[in-house]
Amino acid sequence: MSKIKIGILGYGNLGKGVEIGLKKVEDMELVAVISRRDPETLDTEAPAYRIEDLENIQDEIDVLILCGSSDTDIPVQGPKMARFFNTVDSFDTHDTIGDYFDEIDPISKENQRVALIASGWDPGLFSINRMVAESILPEGESYTFWGKGISQGHSAAVRQLDGVQDAAQYTIPNEDLIASINEFNEVDYTKESAHIREVYVVLEEGAVEEEIEEAIKTMPDYFEGYETNVSFISQEEKDKNHSGMPHGGHVMRQGDLGGSEQAVYEFSLALESNPKFTAAVNIAYARAVYRLAQEENYGAKTVLDIPPAYLSSEDPDDLRRTIL
Amino acid sequence: MSKIKIGILGYGNLGKGVEIGLKKVEDMELVAVISRRDPETLDTEAPAYRIEDLENIQDEIDVLILCGSSDTDIPVQGPKMARFFNTVDSFDTHDTIGDYFDEIDPISKENQRVALIASGWDPGLFSINRMVAESILPEGESYTFWGKGISQGHSAAVRQLDGVQDAAQYTIPNEDLIASINEFNEVDYTKESAHIREVYVVLEEGAVEEEIEEAIKTMPDYFEGYETNVSFISQEEKDKNHSGMPHGGHVMRQGDLGGSEQAVYEFSLALESNPKFTAAVNIAYARAVYRLAQEENYGAKTVLDIPPAYLSSEDPDDLRRTIL
Repeated sequence: MSKIKIGILGYGNLGKGVEIGLKKVEDMELVAVISRRDPETLDTEAPAYRIEDLENIQDEIDVLILCGSSDTDIPVQGPKMARFFNTVDSFDTHDTIGDYFDEIDPISKENQRVALIASGWDPGLFSINRMVAESILPEGESYTFWGKGISQGHSAAVRQLDGVQDAAQYTIPNEDLIASINEFNEVDYTKESAHIREVYVVLEEGAVEEEIEEAIKTMPDYFEGYETNVSFISQEEKDKNHSGMPHGGHVMRQGDLGGSEQAVYEFSLALESNPKFTAAVNIAYARAVYRLAQEENYGAKTVLDIPPAYLSSEDPDDLRRTIL
Repeated sequence: MSKIKIGILGYGNLGKGVEIGLKKVEDMELVAVISRRDPETLDTEAPAYRIEDLENIQDEIDVLILCGSSDTDIPVQGPKMARFFNTVDSFDTHDTIGDYFDEIDPISKENQRVALIASGWDPGLFSINRMVAESILPEGESYTFWGKGISQGHSAAVRQLDGVQDAAQYTIPNEDLIASINEFNEVDYTKESAHIREVYVVLEEGAVEEEIEEAIKTMPDYFEGYETNVSFISQEEKDKNHSGMPHGGHVMRQGDLGGSEQAVYEFSLALESNPKFTAAVNIAYARAVYRLAQEENYGAKTVLDIPPAYLSSEDPDDLRRTIL
């Protein structure tokens, strides 16, 4: 059986994660890494190309996984690549996913391509679970908890304070609140009550701990109103223990079953590497995209459109006999 | 917009659960309850019919939900009803689902019907999550924990002991093991280490507590090797506090992301009523079956074949703008 030929566009954390993840699957192979950088400088075993060469290797790639950023890369690359390739992207600007879909859909249909947009875990697996939970339990309350994980935005906000040399901010879900939801209790959920913020700060010389701690805890939008714990550490400790990219979270729904009986539906992820897991999700969806293209089911798609079996390398009959 | 017309075949706990669940959705209506019993004796507001009348009301039902038992009813009713109706069933004999699919598929195709088999949560939502987790994390270990919930089989086994008047057995997942998996530890998972058994026993007059407790704890296949806690209670307390049908569980996968980093994927349910939740799942899948029939996508299907969006009453564009 011939393998599904994958291309990676953009070779940052996500692109490298796709390369690592592809080594774990037997039905796919990495045939091209494409970057704006000089191909000679890329530390990959796969054939590397310049972005200008993309059109020349069109026929060598079954599915192109777009691994650039959602703010500047994907909005430009997505519509452009949908002409030439079947694509998977992790466009994650929630507010504009609907418009982005509407832009891509006619392009991919006209060019007989499949474009799976907004793959990953949020948007992505979290979205599926929010929707399935609401469909099964139409009367109820939904909750999202993020973490334990590094928030890039909060870490950056702390780093911008005068006197701060470096910082890492972890968002930590309130486990007591999660347990209470699972025990069918009514809870007082707000973003602030649901999360604790843990900040590790490396001070610049001469900075005063109490002042920095106060400046962090009172920062509006970011920390004000949250339970925030600040610890001061050395740059060495920061580099050693807080340079990973863990993340995760919980999507929950407490629903009414009638007759005062309830159900709690919960989907959770605990990830030691956010980009590597997002890459792993994108690889499974690339398999689905390949199959849709084989079926000539063209156009833009989201994770909500994909039958679960399309994500698996197993034969549908085997799945029925082993998984169901 | 006209509503999807639902029929219920079999009016036990599951059938009654479907009736309750349908009151919570706006796009469906219950048009027929069909039972082997005299329609006059059924405590339902919906039109009630005898099973012999089914063929006469064929055109009035968009989707028939089969609510009988998997051991005697569904294996007979499934293939028969697939001729006349689009169906949803909760056939749950894991070992024979593949054969049951192969039996139903040609019948429903020939008669231009859709048959969604093995719906519910296990098989059903648990199967989806096992498969998705393995597809995203191909290198790793999968775990299933059941409970907290009533095990009908274990309760019956205890009731059969001499000296036991009544009994309820709860299967309880080992929360420490679940927490350890979530902390990325290697664990020693066996069915026995993963579950605790809690037994509430009503004794017959003259029975000796110590003897019954010993007989329970040493029962092979059911309790031997498990941590088992036995409590003796009155019939009154049993009826008051232990006559519900709670259940649930956890499907987990610990997967390797490469570079010694890991991910844990977890799907959990906590259900105060097992049959009502199964009914709620079947209602959402009945919506999907209706849509597949509209698209003339006939044949047998499982939950693995259904795009998540088909479960929702919301418009796909709205879903993209609100859920993703």
